[in-house]
Amino acid sequence: MATIPYLTLPHSGHQIPQVGFGLWKVAPEEAANLVYEAIKSGYRLFDGAYDYGNEKEAGEGIRRAISEGIVKREDIFITTKLWNSCHEKERAIKTGTEQVEEWGLGYIDLYLIHFPIAIAFNPKHTRGWYYDGEGEVRLERTSIRETWEALEELHDKGLVKDIGISNFNSQAIFDIFTYARVLPSMLQIEHHPYLVQKNLVDFCKDQNMLVTAYSSFGPQSFLELPASFPTKAAQTPRLFDQDLIKSIAAKYGKTPGQVLLRWATQRGLCVIPKSNHKDRMLQNLDVIGFDMTPDELELIASLDIGLHFNDPGTYLPGRPLRLFT
Amino acid sequence: MATIPYLTLPHSGHQIPQVGFGLWKVAPEEAANLVYEAIKSGYRLFDGAYDYGNEKEAGEGIRRAISEGIVKREDIFITTKLWNSCHEKERAIKTGTEQVEEWGLGYIDLYLIHFPIAIAFNPKHTRGWYYDGEGEVRLERTSIRETWEALEELHDKGLVKDIGISNFNSQAIFDIFTYARVLPSMLQIEHHPYLVQKNLVDFCKDQNMLVTAYSSFGPQSFLELPASFPTKAAQTPRLFDQDLIKSIAAKYGKTPGQVLLRWATQRGLCVIPKSNHKDRMLQNLDVIGFDMTPDELELIASLDIGLHFNDPGTYLPGRPLRLFT
Repeated sequence: MATIPYLTLPHSGHQIPQVGFGLWKVAPEEAANLVYEAIKSGYRLFDGAYDYGNEKEAGEGIRRAISEGIVKREDIFITTKLWNSCHEKERAIKTGTEQVEEWGLGYIDLYLIHFPIAIAFNPKHTRGWYYDGEGEVRLERTSIRETWEALEELHDKGLVKDIGISNFNSQAIFDIFTYARVLPSMLQIEHHPYLVQKNLVDFCKDQNMLVTAYSSFGPQSFLELPASFPTKAAQTPRLFDQDLIKSIAAKYGKTPGQVLLRWATQRGLCVIPKSNHKDRMLQNLDVIGFDMTPDELELIASLDIGLHFNDPGTYLPGRPLRLFT
Repeated sequence: MATIPYLTLPHSGHQIPQVGFGLWKVAPEEAANLVYEAIKSGYRLFDGAYDYGNEKEAGEGIRRAISEGIVKREDIFITTKLWNSCHEKERAIKTGTEQVEEWGLGYIDLYLIHFPIAIAFNPKHTRGWYYDGEGEVRLERTSIRETWEALEELHDKGLVKDIGISNFNSQAIFDIFTYARVLPSMLQIEHHPYLVQKNLVDFCKDQNMLVTAYSSFGPQSFLELPASFPTKAAQTPRLFDQDLIKSIAAKYGKTPGQVLLRWATQRGLCVIPKSNHKDRMLQNLDVIGFDMTPDELELIASLDIGLHFNDPGTYLPGRPLRLFT
């Protein structure tokens, strides 16, 4: 079993595995088994979200592994996220508290604001971008500060051990630093060779924050989305097919996926790939045991075209939310 | 004399000339005469800032033109900006009030937050990025909301007629919209064919804000800065020398500078070029009387390389403020 390095969260001093398992697009009926199998494969970090709709089931998988003595609670690191429709302070506190209960593990290790935008809550459609579940995007006037204060309160109560943000850029983060009592430990961003974000990663180093990369395989992660989310993924050459990635993979005797994950971890980031297949689960975890050269890391970075796939400015055509500009 | 079109500020309904005169890098001892001459040349919009250090003198030039009956106060539109070191609420209100007095024209038409970052105030060095006037950048924990509320108070008092922001991106602006009583009318940004910012300009249209372009000539605007601000300008081919710009200029019988300004105004933006020379002052104002084709506008936009020259993330090496990521 691969040995996963740990990084230290800057404000709490807690340890986070550098490689974890991402729960986006995992069907709830498969989540418990998949998580249980992932733990047996060596995964210790699970990355969830209210929006993914599988927190309860993921928690069941972890509890099964704990009950069988495979791991202890403190061996596991759970990241999850507050959805955009729950930004209002009291709702955020209530939702975060309920998410802790859903996981059923006493506390959450890291709790993130999923996107820097508040949308209106509709009890009939609490997930997704659309107020009516169909095509209407309705904003809500809740500031980031109000939501951050809710996360601080969850932190004060010990329900979440670290707090952070996802899909934020530097201007929004600078503002949080002006009022935060509890500083953000982590920024989670889309990050792959088509979207290198060197300045943003450097910014996080300046600010003493860790970075988690999602969608490390680029377009691959978006091909399975419904057609109502046009993400440009189908029109973009797969990173797995890039000659550069294939030749580096061949040199090290690794898969293109392992090269992409190692490229991120060598840049100091956490990664959270997902797989439904046991062999790829193991492959994705085994991404520490080789080092590419600085030149190779740079060559991979030269594929950068600044392309966000997970951009609500493109996939919400009725009300484009241009969050990355 | 060229006829300058006006745009309507969305929240107040006030009119702003689409072409104005920028006061950045104008020496205070030259400002009064230059502004007076600019008014005689037909300029009605002046774009200043606390940081430029020439508001009093610019106001003198305007008052001279008014006293000679060349224009009335209401013919003139003054934009100016709050500097980063004055973001704290009481200081921002005091500073804005003092700026109104410096101009000596009763009120300011449009008042902007210059950058989305608060730096510590030092009475010995109230301008520039450096706390000690030399190399130390010291941040201050004042949120954008606090500063925006100061601008709203200046607006309530009638001291400033419209309020807005400069160098902000969409995430920071979305947050302002969650709490603003008085909505931002204007975003002022660096904008030229090397930095097209299509998404940000589209975002402002979505949000019903106008956009003012600064540094419309690209690297040209930065060549005269001191060596302590390494802006990449000297390493970048001048836009005036680009064959594309020269050939379009030749086709329309205009200068490359006029093509660059017209490119921005055809995109719906305001422009604020500066010149010390009477003939170029007139040239810069005469940028409405020809229309390029949509194809030509697109061709010019294809020079985009996402290059910010005015980026404190590069020119403040001691404490890089990566604001554009």
